[in-house]
Amino acid sequence: MAETPLYFPSAERERLELHLPTRKDADPSSPSCATLPFVTLTFATSLDSALSLGPGIRTALSGPESKAMTHYLRTRHDAICVGVGTAIADDPGLNSRLNAATHQPRPIIIDPRLRWDFTAQSKVMRLAREGRGLAPYIVTLEEEPPPHKKKILEDAGGKFITLTAGHGDEGRTDGTRFGWRVILSAVRQEGLHSIMIEGGGEVINSLLCEDADLVDSVIVTIAPIWLGQGGVTVSPPRANIDRPVARLSDTMWMPLGADVVLCGKVAR
Amino acid sequence: MAETPLYFPSAERERLELHLPTRKDADPSSPSCATLPFVTLTFATSLDSALSLGPGIRTALSGPESKAMTHYLRTRHDAICVGVGTAIADDPGLNSRLNAATHQPRPIIIDPRLRWDFTAQSKVMRLAREGRGLAPYIVTLEEEPPPHKKKILEDAGGKFITLTAGHGDEGRTDGTRFGWRVILSAVRQEGLHSIMIEGGGEVINSLLCEDADLVDSVIVTIAPIWLGQGGVTVSPPRANIDRPVARLSDTMWMPLGADVVLCGKVAR
Ligand SMILES: NC(=O)c1ccc[n+]([C@@H]2O[C@H](COP(=O)([O-])OP(=O)(O)OC[C@H]3O[C@@H](n4cnc5c(N)ncnc54)[C@H](OP(=O)(O)O)[C@@H]3O)[C@@H](O)[C@H]2O)c1
Ligand SMILES: NC(=O)c1ccc[n+]([C@@H]2O[C@H](COP(=O)([O-])OP(=O)(O)OC[C@H]3O[C@@H](n4cnc5c(N)ncnc54)[C@H](OP(=O)(O)O)[C@@H]3O)[C@@H](O)[C@H]2O)c1
Repeated sequence: MAETPLYFPSAERERLELHLPTRKDADPSSPSCATLPFVTLTFATSLDSALSLGPGIRTALSGPESKAMTHYLRTRHDAICVGVGTAIADDPGLNSRLNAATHQPRPIIIDPRLRWDFTAQSKVMRLAREGRGLAPYIVTLEEEPPPHKKKILEDAGGKFITLTAGHGDEGRTDGTRFGWRVILSAVRQEGLHSIMIEGGGEVINSLLCEDADLVDSVIVTIAPIWLGQGGVTVSPPRANIDRPVARLSDTMWMPLGADVVLCGKVAR
Repeated sequence: MAETPLYFPSAERERLELHLPTRKDADPSSPSCATLPFVTLTFATSLDSALSLGPGIRTALSGPESKAMTHYLRTRHDAICVGVGTAIADDPGLNSRLNAATHQPRPIIIDPRLRWDFTAQSKVMRLAREGRGLAPYIVTLEEEPPPHKKKILEDAGGKFITLTAGHGDEGRTDGTRFGWRVILSAVRQEGLHSIMIEGGGEVINSLLCEDADLVDSVIVTIAPIWLGQGGVTVSPPRANIDRPVARLSDTMWMPLGADVVLCGKVAR
């Protein structure tokens, strides 16, 4: 299972620098710095805005250069966030395999109803035990998660974070939805100053449509491929029929291998 | 109604050159050259692969630099093709407003059932009468188009081209669908050696899914904006659940203003 380390060249690192959190803490002059982390929304899509062919279908999307970039980004953030849909579909590692990575991000998994049936063999737990990554913090509604899950998680170095639903909870009526501000405040309270939100579809769409103002930086990789109908797509619900959901400003397009990387800020 | 002419810089022209038909006829060494035109598939989308907010909703998508590129491309092709959905929704000009354009493309409109209710005041007819563009050839199933439509069209310098349905007609059972090879052969028989296919959604999706092998070059502009759910999107039907529809090879990404232009070939 020895996976090859990834290299990300310094020329590209420099071009990304403007779009990343500062090396130490978030900018102390920013008013939200005390309560919220620096948020980078980052993911890879096809030309038809698909994240994958479907939940659980392995999808070769971006090339090795973009993959190395993602693993570089992971060394530049304190935390990395995915929804439970991704945890279930992909059994993701959520660590950095960058060559000589000295910093690993803390995985944050949004799993309100504890649907993720992880074991000690789940990839992220294994990597944590082997010292190649950190164990996840699982954000949930459950006040008392099952003891056997708690044990597996805590043995690896992770924990559950119980939050109450609400704040921005417009999309759902069953009260199982956290507002993103609530999630991000909790992350900041853990001493995590920056977070990259990686997916999947529901996480990205809800963030773009309801809470795009919480996003400090957007870094999207686009691969020159059409996956076709039926994939998990980035396509946020539109509030106004004749108004786009969001536009990026301060954009930079960086070709990387066969892909392109788009960096920008959500225009206010 | 004096519209400002558009400029497209020579540096960018040079970068596109490899992806365009040769300046004279199509390459005579290509076996299909005698029967089919050089086909460039070209359009602009949002990050979420939308061509527009919806049929008939004016959508500011790409910036002035990309728009100038599109008008440059129009001077480099003998024909420009759209589906009747676009003709109805947009009342498009289908000419080139490039500064000092000496060549105008022939508009080809695919309208099997003559749904487009054009008049002498439709933009493309007006431009043709004013010598600022060419009148369309309308590809239809109708053997005898209504005489008043025929007169308007022919007065402007256009005509109807009647074809029979079929060849590649898998998507539809009502027999109103032309195979793309049939359409393109008819275009070539008119002495047109190259064609850019611009849209809209149904045209692009059917071409990518059924007849991508007829496409010689792909030039897609991507704007840094999410239009959100409900737009007209490029998202071709997938033949196999676990296989992408198409991948591009020989790609070149060219940032242009706030947008990026992707050129490539459909990988075989
Ligand atoms: N290409 C890429 O960059 C990339 C990156 C990541 C993932 N992916 C792909 O994305 C796919 C999975 O996406 P997905 O849309 O199915 O799942 P997802 O977005 O990973 O997870 C969605 C689930 O997370 C929970 N959730 C998210 N936001 C929440 C909130 N604010 N409050 C409470 N719960 C919240 C909900 O769980 P409940 O339903 O239990 O309420 C929701 O159903 C996979 O195919 C994966 O491979 C691709
Ligand atoms: N962003 C861009 O670059 C761009 C470019 C062009 C258009 N657009 C947008 O696209 C939208 C329109 O797209 P759309 O999908 O509604 O319409 P469309 O693709 O322009 O036209 C579709 C119609 O054309 C006919 N057609 C297409 N292929 C055919 C074939 N092989 N055989 C027979 N008939 C064929 C059919 O007419 P029948 O239904 O009568 O059979 C079909 O319904 C508009 O909003 C427009 O603004 C954007």
